[in-house]
Amino acid sequence: MNKQEIIANIKRKKSFLCIGLDSELSKLPKHLLSFADSIFEFNKQIIDSTIDLAVAYKPNIAFYESLGTKGWQSLEKTIEYLNKFKSEVFTIADAKRGDIGNTSRLYAKAFFETLDFNAITVAPYMGEDSITPFLSYPDKWVILLALTSNKGADDFQNIISKDEKQLFESVLTKAKQWGNEENMMFVVGATQAIMLEKIRKIIPNHFLLVPGVGAQGGSLEDVARYGFNEDCGLLVNASRNIIFASDGKDFATKAREQALILQQAMQKILRENKLIS
Amino acid sequence: MNKQEIIANIKRKKSFLCIGLDSELSKLPKHLLSFADSIFEFNKQIIDSTIDLAVAYKPNIAFYESLGTKGWQSLEKTIEYLNKFKSEVFTIADAKRGDIGNTSRLYAKAFFETLDFNAITVAPYMGEDSITPFLSYPDKWVILLALTSNKGADDFQNIISKDEKQLFESVLTKAKQWGNEENMMFVVGATQAIMLEKIRKIIPNHFLLVPGVGAQGGSLEDVARYGFNEDCGLLVNASRNIIFASDGKDFATKAREQALILQQAMQKILRENKLIS
Repeated sequence: MNKQEIIANIKRKKSFLCIGLDSELSKLPKHLLSFADSIFEFNKQIIDSTIDLAVAYKPNIAFYESLGTKGWQSLEKTIEYLNKFKSEVFTIADAKRGDIGNTSRLYAKAFFETLDFNAITVAPYMGEDSITPFLSYPDKWVILLALTSNKGADDFQNIISKDEKQLFESVLTKAKQWGNEENMMFVVGATQAIMLEKIRKIIPNHFLLVPGVGAQGGSLEDVARYGFNEDCGLLVNASRNIIFASDGKDFATKAREQALILQQAMQKILRENKLIS
Repeated sequence: MNKQEIIANIKRKKSFLCIGLDSELSKLPKHLLSFADSIFEFNKQIIDSTIDLAVAYKPNIAFYESLGTKGWQSLEKTIEYLNKFKSEVFTIADAKRGDIGNTSRLYAKAFFETLDFNAITVAPYMGEDSITPFLSYPDKWVILLALTSNKGADDFQNIISKDEKQLFESVLTKAKQWGNEENMMFVVGATQAIMLEKIRKIIPNHFLLVPGVGAQGGSLEDVARYGFNEDCGLLVNASRNIIFASDGKDFATKAREQALILQQAMQKILRENKLIS
């Protein structure tokens, strides 16, 4: 999926919501445990009940990998199901991979070929040759960690260099030369909304993936105030608040209710910014 | 496996060799392709032919993940087979994971419970809460990226901070407070051997996992000169040079020959350093 198609979906659905499929087995509604593949059944019902409200879905790979081969099968079925809506949703493998070039090439194969995702999250520590193998696929995206939403983000990402740059600024400055606005996005946590002003000076036009609204305490309005650009430029993720809104038989309905609250708030922001009428 | 057991194996086998199971399907000897699980068959023969020469094995997860469920099955069978030699070999999942605490907890489950590895490689960018979930397992290890062997290492790992520390030094300094010498090792590439002197001043007693000898051009002698400590303190990895020494029916014999060359050189180093007689 290319940038123009992402923007078209945002305008059509009046939403820049990404739903995180952090589908942890122990948190699923009990009545789903009788299904042969409970996690896939859960994901399918969440997707069906929110597909008109979300422009992106983001399975968090750890939650599948922790179950071994069986979890990997659930992931395969989930991306296959998402790809039935190929023109409607942007799909992100939240994998945070990154290794020497020879190995990143295989991770790219895993998530762009074996599993047909649109995008993968990647960690920057190992530098250029750990990133570029992902960039050679047309209409596929690297979403590089810049400033994350967790407490530990402060340990290294904010270290100030001798030339007065925080580490995440060096990541943005270098990485924007490796890719472009058509194949690279960056992760900026919603808990860091105030930093978006600084970030937008370095990368005014790139899309940002913004986790941390809701469960982690970030504010949608702050994210939009500092991070919005003329294309919208934001995919705001919510996971647990939506998918685990209820652990009863009404889980999909309740998930839709939570997604709708966010979509409505996003519609208002898109209007205020004149992206939709 | 605890630190004393690792050291005992090093002394007994007169080796600090780790063999990287970067078992890429397209590079396997052709006669193995008729097996139901070619990759597992390849790994099994490599392990059988080198088990007395290597103290550690390190499957590179990308090479399995790139094949989806089938690759994951090969990985499961490989770690199961390695665990038949549980007291003899240290097993490393070269996965370079790392995510917010809630997610790292699931990656720990994936590699320490679902797959029963001794250790996992982890990337430091997201800080403390991305690392600590791996540290709560007794006799399991985090191997944290510090200074890697690839060209891109220079992009961020060597950035100098206002207080005159390179980023990898900040990683070492902070991370050694999160874990200890009994549950944490660090990755330092053999191509960076000269830096080991500096690194040993920060972490004199930790074990280091050193990739990059051979295919990537690092020298075993330099690594030992600057990185050796009183426990040996090194696991030196070789992958392609050993496992792909031949692509014929003699691949396991040829792999053994290459492993033996390294083991003999390591035995000499262990003697010179009076770790063995």
